[in-house]
Amino acid sequence: MSNKNLVISIDAMGGDNSPRVVIEGLALAHKRNPDIRFLIYGDEAKVKAEMAKFPSLEGICEVFHTQEAVKNEDKPSHVIRNRATSMYQAIEAVKQGKAQAVVSAGNTGALMAISKMVLKTIQKIHRPAIITIMPHEAGRYVMLDLGANTECDGINLAEFAIMGNIYAKCALNIDRPRVALMNIGAEEMKGKEEIHVAAHIIKSTHLNLNFIGYIEPHEIPRNKADVIVADGFSGNIALKSVEGTCHLITRLVKNSIKSSIMAKIGLLFMLGAAKKLKKTFDPRLYNGAMLVGLNGLSVKSHGGADALGFSVAVENAAKLVARDLVGSIRRELENVDLDEISQEAYYDVY
Amino acid sequence: MSNKNLVISIDAMGGDNSPRVVIEGLALAHKRNPDIRFLIYGDEAKVKAEMAKFPSLEGICEVFHTQEAVKNEDKPSHVIRNRATSMYQAIEAVKQGKAQAVVSAGNTGALMAISKMVLKTIQKIHRPAIITIMPHEAGRYVMLDLGANTECDGINLAEFAIMGNIYAKCALNIDRPRVALMNIGAEEMKGKEEIHVAAHIIKSTHLNLNFIGYIEPHEIPRNKADVIVADGFSGNIALKSVEGTCHLITRLVKNSIKSSIMAKIGLLFMLGAAKKLKKTFDPRLYNGAMLVGLNGLSVKSHGGADALGFSVAVENAAKLVARDLVGSIRRELENVDLDEISQEAYYDVY
Repeated sequence: MSNKNLVISIDAMGGDNSPRVVIEGLALAHKRNPDIRFLIYGDEAKVKAEMAKFPSLEGICEVFHTQEAVKNEDKPSHVIRNRATSMYQAIEAVKQGKAQAVVSAGNTGALMAISKMVLKTIQKIHRPAIITIMPHEAGRYVMLDLGANTECDGINLAEFAIMGNIYAKCALNIDRPRVALMNIGAEEMKGKEEIHVAAHIIKSTHLNLNFIGYIEPHEIPRNKADVIVADGFSGNIALKSVEGTCHLITRLVKNSIKSSIMAKIGLLFMLGAAKKLKKTFDPRLYNGAMLVGLNGLSVKSHGGADALGFSVAVENAAKLVARDLVGSIRRELENVDLDEISQEAYYDVY
Repeated sequence: MSNKNLVISIDAMGGDNSPRVVIEGLALAHKRNPDIRFLIYGDEAKVKAEMAKFPSLEGICEVFHTQEAVKNEDKPSHVIRNRATSMYQAIEAVKQGKAQAVVSAGNTGALMAISKMVLKTIQKIHRPAIITIMPHEAGRYVMLDLGANTECDGINLAEFAIMGNIYAKCALNIDRPRVALMNIGAEEMKGKEEIHVAAHIIKSTHLNLNFIGYIEPHEIPRNKADVIVADGFSGNIALKSVEGTCHLITRLVKNSIKSSIMAKIGLLFMLGAAKKLKKTFDPRLYNGAMLVGLNGLSVKSHGGADALGFSVAVENAAKLVARDLVGSIRRELENVDLDEISQEAYYDVY
């Protein structure tokens, strides 16, 4: 990336071990992307103490002191009223045009609530959605919604498909992403009605999405689709089921190796293959979920992410700024009246 | 098990490679449970040709010729009208009291539809649910519903909790199973309203369930609950996400070993540990989902299961007969008026 005007605002006080991990992450991101500049919001003394360890950050960072920080247990209804937090100020910087994206490792609910209130939803989008990148057997795909909307109707899902399509183009460099609706069967009438309506709306738009129909969760890792669309409840269930299974298998493998000397010897021979495999599943390399559908980029780093993880979230944000994700979504929607299409779709399905 | 009157009816024509795999499976089940007798429904010539390979089955099997078999693509609405199929006849045998359970590897939708129509739902249960046994890091748990009910209200979920509780007692020998509702957050107001209502109903019954609240999918493998309750859509999504992730990891591990000579050598040392691990996840050992909530036991073996898998489904059925699952559910419900409790719960939650 060589965009000299790329500025990202950073909530330095979110996540475990902040601001240490955050600043370390910025130093890492800077090494690989020397052109990004940072506006850092947080406890000035603590932030500057950490920055002193990384002379490379001098000159590309501006630090703004904030009195307060959003806590993990803070309720969204509470945090949106408190402009004094580092998170609020970092998001506000995007609204004011001082930065083009914000990255925070803080409380997800708070980040979503403040981002939604401050940055506002893109015109024509009814509801923003949480999107992230995941690994499949031959590369990566994107999935949304992961929890912003517990209940969705057909038009919400269709909007997620449109946004996911553009996200996959920008973040994964795929020309014509294969878009699928997550469902519990491949047949046309399986699953929930809102999914049937969404399928109908997607097929009816003039957007010409590369819509491949329904996908069942066990088919997702088989490189069949690039964009998986779901309501926030099901998407969250799928994401956490994958996460739980990965952890379960890792724990069981570790235990079974620990309990056998032969297996320990075997592991020595397998270190190369194991490392490669670990990299495929390293959650740090997929860090940086975001609320897509707002007039600005708000990226969530995992609260427990280390410096490498935080740097990946920052780079993800930078990439989406450079590719103009927000502008692309706006342009894509200019000539579409989803409400009208959905009205027709409801008549057709029912 | 030493129940001399244990009779199980078998749909010999369901699943891949039937009736070969089915008959082989019965021979395996017989070896470990010599007291079970079988009523076998299917193409008599084919069934008897397979049985000829297993003299041990003589005297404990009765074969009933059926003209037709349910096909994979048959619609439920179609199969419930055709009494001539092996599946229909095998289920009918349970209704007539000739057998105490039926096992079929055929079309799931068909098995559910015929079982529901022929065996009927237990009084006071609004909707039966599909339940299965799954592995966690220290043993096994049960999960329902896995797809019988796409949309559920609070009372449906509460009934699933009651049935799952008894199923876990019978199938896993757990005295006081820990029952949890699957949700996307642990906090009381997270997730869907029907889940909140269900939690309220479960707490309000006199059944004294060991209800531990909500569980998120990534916590399930950590041995935190014995019964996971979900609507059929979310349960199916979770199950298939776990399945897909297991396959993905297995494929990637195999590929990475294949591509490295060092790793191949390492594998030789690890065979013992790998075998142990494989056994923990061997889907054959968890074979035998069932529709719980009917006046009779109807067990579904995986269509692609081999003989070992089919024998596990048969043994699972036998165990649940011996423990009187159906009678236990009936007795548990005798003194509970869930409709009344749910009425109150709705007032409390809304």
